[in-house]
Amino acid sequence: MTAHFDALETRDPAEREAAQFAALAAQLVEARSAAPALDAQLGGIDAATVTDRAALAAVPLMRKADLVERQQAAPPFGGLATLPAERFDHVFQSPGPIYEPGMVSVPDWWRTARALHAGGIGPDDRVLNCFSYHLVPAGIMLESGARALGSVVMPGGVGQSDAQVAAAAHMGATAYVGTPDFLKTLLDKAAETGATLAFTKAWVSGGALFPSLRAAYAEAGIACVQGYATADLGSVAYETVHRGAPLPGMIVDEGVILEIVRPGTGDPVPAGEVGEIVVTLLNPDYPLLRFATGDMSAVLEGPSPCGRTGLRIKGWMGRADQTTKVRGMFVRPEQIAALLARHPQAGKARATVGRAEQQDTLALAVEATSRDAALAAALAETARDLLKVRATVELVAPGSLPNDGKVIDDVRTYD
Amino acid sequence: MTAHFDALETRDPAEREAAQFAALAAQLVEARSAAPALDAQLGGIDAATVTDRAALAAVPLMRKADLVERQQAAPPFGGLATLPAERFDHVFQSPGPIYEPGMVSVPDWWRTARALHAGGIGPDDRVLNCFSYHLVPAGIMLESGARALGSVVMPGGVGQSDAQVAAAAHMGATAYVGTPDFLKTLLDKAAETGATLAFTKAWVSGGALFPSLRAAYAEAGIACVQGYATADLGSVAYETVHRGAPLPGMIVDEGVILEIVRPGTGDPVPAGEVGEIVVTLLNPDYPLLRFATGDMSAVLEGPSPCGRTGLRIKGWMGRADQTTKVRGMFVRPEQIAALLARHPQAGKARATVGRAEQQDTLALAVEATSRDAALAAALAETARDLLKVRATVELVAPGSLPNDGKVIDDVRTYD
Repeated sequence: MTAHFDALETRDPAEREAAQFAALAAQLVEARSAAPALDAQLGGIDAATVTDRAALAAVPLMRKADLVERQQAAPPFGGLATLPAERFDHVFQSPGPIYEPGMVSVPDWWRTARALHAGGIGPDDRVLNCFSYHLVPAGIMLESGARALGSVVMPGGVGQSDAQVAAAAHMGATAYVGTPDFLKTLLDKAAETGATLAFTKAWVSGGALFPSLRAAYAEAGIACVQGYATADLGSVAYETVHRGAPLPGMIVDEGVILEIVRPGTGDPVPAGEVGEIVVTLLNPDYPLLRFATGDMSAVLEGPSPCGRTGLRIKGWMGRADQTTKVRGMFVRPEQIAALLARHPQAGKARATVGRAEQQDTLALAVEATSRDAALAAALAETARDLLKVRATVELVAPGSLPNDGKVIDDVRTYD
Repeated sequence: MTAHFDALETRDPAEREAAQFAALAAQLVEARSAAPALDAQLGGIDAATVTDRAALAAVPLMRKADLVERQQAAPPFGGLATLPAERFDHVFQSPGPIYEPGMVSVPDWWRTARALHAGGIGPDDRVLNCFSYHLVPAGIMLESGARALGSVVMPGGVGQSDAQVAAAAHMGATAYVGTPDFLKTLLDKAAETGATLAFTKAWVSGGALFPSLRAAYAEAGIACVQGYATADLGSVAYETVHRGAPLPGMIVDEGVILEIVRPGTGDPVPAGEVGEIVVTLLNPDYPLLRFATGDMSAVLEGPSPCGRTGLRIKGWMGRADQTTKVRGMFVRPEQIAALLARHPQAGKARATVGRAEQQDTLALAVEATSRDAALAAALAETARDLLKVRATVELVAPGSLPNDGKVIDDVRTYD
């Protein structure tokens, strides 16, 4: 097995950026006539001018709620795909419900082969695929990548752990693909029944991989890496194995353009700052544009020791949706963003929701260069106007708020 | 949509027979060096001479029990596949456990497209596939056929009926593929929730389709046909729709050679007689030879009104495995066959297991041209010898035993 999947992984970052944006602009020009929802999202923007990150940042986000609404209005794909449903191989359904198109006649349509390869999986592997194939695309998505690599796949699915252990033992499965925890279930079951498993690699996604669990797998002789993929987007980023061990952080897939934005806005944050992952797909069949994932991460600066030159991110750092209720009123990150937009002197903000004397409290900490009492009062006034909730405002020094992507921090306890 | 899938379906039966046996002999010559279990099954037979049904009938059967044993000895496929596991796309596991190879990079490897087409499914259909994709091959098997026809597929799987109804409604699913009963569950759920389903076709397998259920589907505007397929063999035979309604009987798939044999033997029965379905696959990757399915059927004589010239069978008529216990001893169809083999004057036989005075009884009815008391006595003696159980023997006229494929009829009741 070669160290890299292809030459794309090690190209000069400027070259990648130029190639990806040239592909994106061409894709958008072509796709907007076939995909009404994409056309609406672009609005007055000339698609041919979306040739760099600044131009991309001007495009409104596509949120999951928008997607659900558009799909209900125009089933099955809401006018976001460029092909009619019949031209796809699959329609999938994820909780929401959200519907996703799928293609297996185009090899590795979800681009998971690159991610599996980075985890050391190759043509000699016998893969037990423990993602679900039913309704959701996860199973087929990873299977497509494994088959593109030439691996043979046992579609284990979720559950039936006794049968799966027997199958893995019988076929001599070398690689586990599935959620982080289910591998533990299989190993425990094998220990219980005396079955011999031959796993040396694991590729996991769809949940948090706790360091202690990764260490337990390593002790069992299994090098476990994580991938970040979603039902809508396919593979987005993946850990890489270097000199036998997984490196920190994830490399962004070559087929997507990834941005990190301030939650509640579409504004890219400075490198290193935690924010929401926004993904644009380089896929002419399903050209999702600035799709807001609701997942949080941050750019990890500096080159990866594995030699891949793609953007690195820190991996999954929680959910961006921090909507909560204060005194019966919903408070959303978008409202905090709207509040700040009215006060150009204000920088980042953090709303802390607490409890005092049997009452909900809302405290706004806002970064500003000067401790201007008039600014604080104006912010409080706007908060009352926009949030319909009384808030205290404290101005703090720029850079003093924690870098955790939190715009709303709910610290109430209920016990 | 054309009436027939291709020209193979309407060729002259003699031409089909010649083409299939030429392909079989070539396949066996080629495959025996790569598949040790096939080589052992052929034994001293020159593969090049297996060019007609008589020659084929001389090859020992491959029973499921043999398959399990061989797979345990030489995992995963027991030396019956001509490719190593890595060259297949899938390894599947069915209850037994029995392992099956799978291929999706070869379009429609299980030949289900022909069967779905005969049920009226085509490129404009949106298929809800309610077979399982987990461990067993059923889901992928039918999906491969549907995709070969150009249909788009929702991999619904088994269960989650609420989500499946929502998915079928959202995508406007026109065709149901799954077990006979689950469609009823979906229709009931839709009626309960007010969802509008657009099914007009159903293709079912994996269980009995009761005539009343088929009628209920027809009343709901759904033309429902049955297919006969197994995890090991793929599509074997299928019902056809003619002038909007399903015809009686099933047409045997063009990619298999089907025989009906007397249960417990490998001997073909005369046309029309009920017996066990034995299938030989024309598939160089997995050249199963005289695979005994354990399922019963009979040849249905006369041409099909749909114009297809392939062998017709009556559909599924129960299980061939009639093994039972009499006074603590197993009695198997193979033993009855061995008993008859010692007495050339004996024709068909039927062992009836009953109960009298708190004791199991075994009555052998044997067809013979003469009521020879010495023959009856000799048969009783052999029965005691082979079955280790005392049996009464009655000689009956040739043709007087019922044509239901039963060699052992257990009429004991336990209430």
